[in-house]
Amino acid sequence: MKRGQNMITSKDNSQYKFWGKLQQKKYRQKEQLFLVEGLHLAVEAKKNNVLVEVLVREGTITEFEETTLLKQDLFDKLAGTVNSAGVMAVCRMHEAEIMAMDRLLLVDGVQDPGNLGTLIRSALAFGFDGIVLSENTVDVYNEKVVRATQGALFALPIIRRDLVAYVKELQKANVQVYAAILNTAAKPLNAVSTVDQMAFIVGNEGAGIRADLVATCNNSVEIEMNATTESLNVGVAGSIIMYQFRHTKCMKNKK
Amino acid sequence: MKRGQNMITSKDNSQYKFWGKLQQKKYRQKEQLFLVEGLHLAVEAKKNNVLVEVLVREGTITEFEETTLLKQDLFDKLAGTVNSAGVMAVCRMHEAEIMAMDRLLLVDGVQDPGNLGTLIRSALAFGFDGIVLSENTVDVYNEKVVRATQGALFALPIIRRDLVAYVKELQKANVQVYAAILNTAAKPLNAVSTVDQMAFIVGNEGAGIRADLVATCNNSVEIEMNATTESLNVGVAGSIIMYQFRHTKCMKNKK
Repeated sequence: MKRGQNMITSKDNSQYKFWGKLQQKKYRQKEQLFLVEGLHLAVEAKKNNVLVEVLVREGTITEFEETTLLKQDLFDKLAGTVNSAGVMAVCRMHEAEIMAMDRLLLVDGVQDPGNLGTLIRSALAFGFDGIVLSENTVDVYNEKVVRATQGALFALPIIRRDLVAYVKELQKANVQVYAAILNTAAKPLNAVSTVDQMAFIVGNEGAGIRADLVATCNNSVEIEMNATTESLNVGVAGSIIMYQFRHTKCMKNKK
Repeated sequence: MKRGQNMITSKDNSQYKFWGKLQQKKYRQKEQLFLVEGLHLAVEAKKNNVLVEVLVREGTITEFEETTLLKQDLFDKLAGTVNSAGVMAVCRMHEAEIMAMDRLLLVDGVQDPGNLGTLIRSALAFGFDGIVLSENTVDVYNEKVVRATQGALFALPIIRRDLVAYVKELQKANVQVYAAILNTAAKPLNAVSTVDQMAFIVGNEGAGIRADLVATCNNSVEIEMNATTESLNVGVAGSIIMYQFRHTKCMKNKK
């Protein structure tokens, strides 16, 4: 323990109780704070200027100057996974504006935290400008979403909107909007031409994209599959589409 | 309840205890049986001739002629998720032989059940001939793997081998083997030419593919990404590669 550093040893400690509440969406919203687990995410949070506080399990050594120590059992109770490796961080929410509309991903009603996290991670990897979530999509600050993003959520603008209204705005701005659907009326992915401004919508794991939202789109796209297969995982489907239309800035690292 | 149908009402029932043991890998291996959850997977199991028995939660109506009823609390204790919708099935393991070597996926040390399940689902979607797992890859009959495959594991040959030895066999049979790695020495995915027989290796979530296995391969491939991104989810990376080299039989359903 560093000089002057205190350790939280009681579950009745008011700070400890406060962090525990951040596991619930309503408190995260109220406080505009959320928890992340693991050294990697804590480092990414710091890099992106959203780090509020680092929480460390008693006995863990980290690179951070200032940390708050927690007694082992208290830390373990707060940490959602065995993967935290003794480090958690409290982070500040920050809804960044989407600054460009060359490539956008719209997410309609995705419920699985791992799927949303994967989509966010891939969107950053493929140079997308931002992600727009429907109101009924899982909370982006859910700990499982945060973990699956591997830190990408700190680096990418993610906003929540009424998607039907948002698509209409995009169309006014000359963005081509594609609904990813399973339907022989849709264009095969390979047949879709690259244009300057493109947005893609992926939908709920079971039900797909809501019919009124599909109807709003100019275009639809289908990933070519074995005829006997019903569908792909939505995180995979969205990632394949984003790879196909990755922004040219992604190719700078390779000849 | 149908005429003559009994309901299991005690946790001490020997059949009930037997099914519970199937949640452990060693009993699955010993009995060559595994559990699946949900009507969809039970139907897929039947279609693929591996269905042994359908277990139904008291009060649930299904399309199956013969089922075993379980009292609500017993069913709920056996079911691993809230997604079973009152149906589980006992299925027979069946290690099918890989009959063609046009497109294979090799999986080295993947630990997350969702990632393996996603890879299996995508491999079927993109017309791959089979999947070869390293000995330290997560058990394919783990309930979370089974769920993420959405039934694809019934329709695709999946075997477990020493991958270094297996890659050498593939090379003797003139299969081009590509290691998916993060390294500027690797070819960008777009620059890899399609040949008749291709195999792709993906690796562990943290450590990637073991060095001795990478050294055995003729070729390596990297998915083009934003320079600041460290990596993709392995389920996504493998799926993008499989989409890129999907077997031509996948394109029959589209012009």
